[in-house]
Amino acid sequence: MRLVKVLGSITSTIKDPTLKGFKILLVQCIETDLKGRQEYFVAVDTVGMGEGEIGLIVTGSTAKRTEVTKKKNVDAAIVAKVDRIDLE
Amino acid sequence: MRLVKVLGSITSTIKDPTLKGFKILLVQCIETDLKGRQEYFVAVDTVGMGEGEIGLIVTGSTAKRTEVTKKKNVDAAIVAKVDRIDLE
Amino acid sequence: MRLVKVLGSITSTIKDPTLKGFKILLVQCIETDLKGRQEYFVAVDTVGMGEGEIGLIVTGSTAKRTEVTKKKNVDAAIVAKVDRIDLE
Amino acid sequence: MRLVKVLGSITSTIKDPTLKGFKILLVQCIETDLKGRQEYFVAVDTVGMGEGEIGLIVTGSTAKRTEVTKKKNVDAAIVAKVDRIDLE
Amino acid sequence: MRLVKVLGSITSTIKDPTLKGFKILLVQCIETDLKGRQEYFVAVDTVGMGEGEIGLIVTGSTAKRTEVTKKKNVDAAIVAKVDRIDLE
Repeated sequence: MRLVKVLGSITSTIKDPTLKGFKILLVQCIETDLKGRQEYFVAVDTVGMGEGEIGLIVTGSTAKRTEVTKKKNVDAAIVAKVDRIDLE
Repeated sequence: MRLVKVLGSITSTIKDPTLKGFKILLVQCIETDLKGRQEYFVAVDTVGMGEGEIGLIVTGSTAKRTEVTKKKNVDAAIVAKVDRIDLE
Repeated sequence: MRLVKVLGSITSTIKDPTLKGFKILLVQCIETDLKGRQEYFVAVDTVGMGEGEIGLIVTGSTAKRTEVTKKKNVDAAIVAKVDRIDLE
Repeated sequence: MRLVKVLGSITSTIKDPTLKGFKILLVQCIETDLKGRQEYFVAVDTVGMGEGEIGLIVTGSTAKRTEVTKKKNVDAAIVAKVDRIDLE
Repeated sequence: MRLVKVLGSITSTIKDPTLKGFKILLVQCIETDLKGRQEYFVAVDTVGMGEGEIGLIVTGSTAKRTEVTKKKNVDAAIVAKVDRIDLE
């Protein structure tokens, strides 16, 4: 998984039919100090994220394994909302 | 998924037979300000993109799951045309 | 696999049901001198890692193949605790 | 897919038995101006490339899906020879 | 595949049971001049590599397809020892 921050949302009318109904979010990978890095993904939301919130994404074939993304043509999904990061 | 801009198209005569008939596009990953980053993909078009337009690509095995790319030897496909990006 | 150092742990209440019960760790890829690089993953722990310890992660579909991660929606798992690195 | 240029070929005597008989090429990812980037792959040739020629590679599990790479232990294959790139 | 140089070996006592018995090597991706790049993998050896030698790795699910890595939880394996690189 990767630690990400939600930057915003994406609206698309013409798209793969299996993507209909999903909230599609633009997320940025972040470091332990919560600063963004130059690595972005567009992920479907499976847990109810708000903008600016911190979450975890899975990528690749795993993104198609959650209850709500089964058989959907997605390769990135937010699977957790992060409450706290405890550093050593 | 990744947010990309269509840069151009690629013509190939000698290719894997399963790639025949596809519009093959050269795309560049972009950031939230729509500026390009040094990350490029070549993706088949499944939604009817025009050059310069913004879209979403899926990569890896997911690219072979759309209606039109089933059993085709592709690892990147444009699956959505982006209408609007709403940043926080 | 990738050589990583455990930086800390992540707490999440709202998450994919299959992620419940796992220790979710934030790890950083390291080089041979054990210095961190700008590459981070969030991985479930399958071997009992402590913070600051060095381990190996698998990513992608392999992360779902261990005894404890079967059918879990994870794309990164720590599969070994590293005792020693012998350089040439 | 990725746009690549063929840099050279690789000779290996001791290798996985399924790799026997393939032309194994060293390729470099290129940008739209055909300049190389610091991203290299070693790919098996499925279309008859010459050195210095431009082609498309697929990576990951897709590389094992072409007629000639079925059940071969490859994770990168050249699947098209590029005739022309039309930029916007 | 990727062109790599063997940097050293890794010893691990506490690990996934399927990793037992493998020689686990730390490898670095190299360029055509054999200089290392900042990209490292930890791969199981399937061909009998020595330290400092040049080889090819496969990553992802392909790494689990060789005779010796079947059903093993690995995501990177050395599948060829390189004898010679011929550049254009």
